Amino acid sequence: MAELYLEDFAVGQRFISATHRIDADQIKAFASRFDPQPFHTDDIAAQTSFFKGLAASGWHTAAITMSLLVKSDMPIAGGLIGAGGEITWPRPTRPDDVLQVESEILAVTPSRSRPERGTITVRSETKNQNGEVLQVLTSKMLVWRKPT
Amino acid sequence: MAELYLEDFAVGQRFISATHRIDADQIKAFASRFDPQPFHTDDIAAQTSFFKGLAASGWHTAAITMSLLVKSDMPIAGGLIGAGGEITWPRPTRPDDVLQVESEILAVTPSRSRPERGTITVRSETKNQNGEVLQVLTSKMLVWRKPT
Repeated sequence: MAELYLEDFAVGQRFISATHRIDADQIKAFASRFDPQPFHTDDIAAQTSFFKGLAASGWHTAAITMSLLVKSDMPIAGGLIGAGGEITWPRPTRPDDVLQVESEILAVTPSRSRPERGTITVRSETKNQNGEVLQVLTSKMLVWRKPT
Repeated sequence: MAELYLEDFAVGQRFISATHRIDADQIKAFASRFDPQPFHTDDIAAQTSFFKGLAASGWHTAAITMSLLVKSDMPIAGGLIGAGGEITWPRPTRPDDVLQVESEILAVTPSRSRPERGTITVRSETKNQNGEVLQVLTSKMLVWRKPT
């Protein structure tokens, strides 16, 4: 796919990523490093936790979402550079969930001060194989204008 | 430190985490898995990128921030369970930065429908060894009331 510049984006465009299957080993490995809490690292302890079973760290879901966006979804010229965003996790990511990201362009905003760039606002829903939404990320990303 | 319940939190309380030094190997390892873009994985290519040098994925900074919160900062009873939040990365995280998280309680909100729980709103600034802010995360976390 051709690399995308600011001029290539329009409100309402949609992008769909490839998929990634997460398993219990991935969940525990990520969590033991970055979110070492029993409901992310221990099947038995997780049963009696708030999550009632092993659940991935939300930051793991976020990281997988990023990998899907980078590898398969939006080939933004110069790379995917996020300034930040809002993130929610409506339900936990479970072992053997198959994650896929559906993104929609909410806004395309040329920079007032820097004519060579702008930002896009993107809403990315990360769903499992049943279509249940695991994460909603609304992010602003830096996008370059086509070189003249 | 004792575990913290909703009654233990008050607006304006501050918490400071331990520190974590990030290095180029960590940056490349995380990025090759979750954010495989040249400015996160390749020192040379990064030099001519937007970041002008190797920079950590923002999601890596977020994951380290979570690890610091979990391991050393806020011992919330039942664990740190986030419903979501807002995240920004004012400047890139660089190799050999020493990260530390400073958190402040912005709001303490009992649940109207579920008397056994509530939420706290927490602003967490992740800074490097020079006091520069690398990430600002404002998150809502689930907190339990003291068992009666």
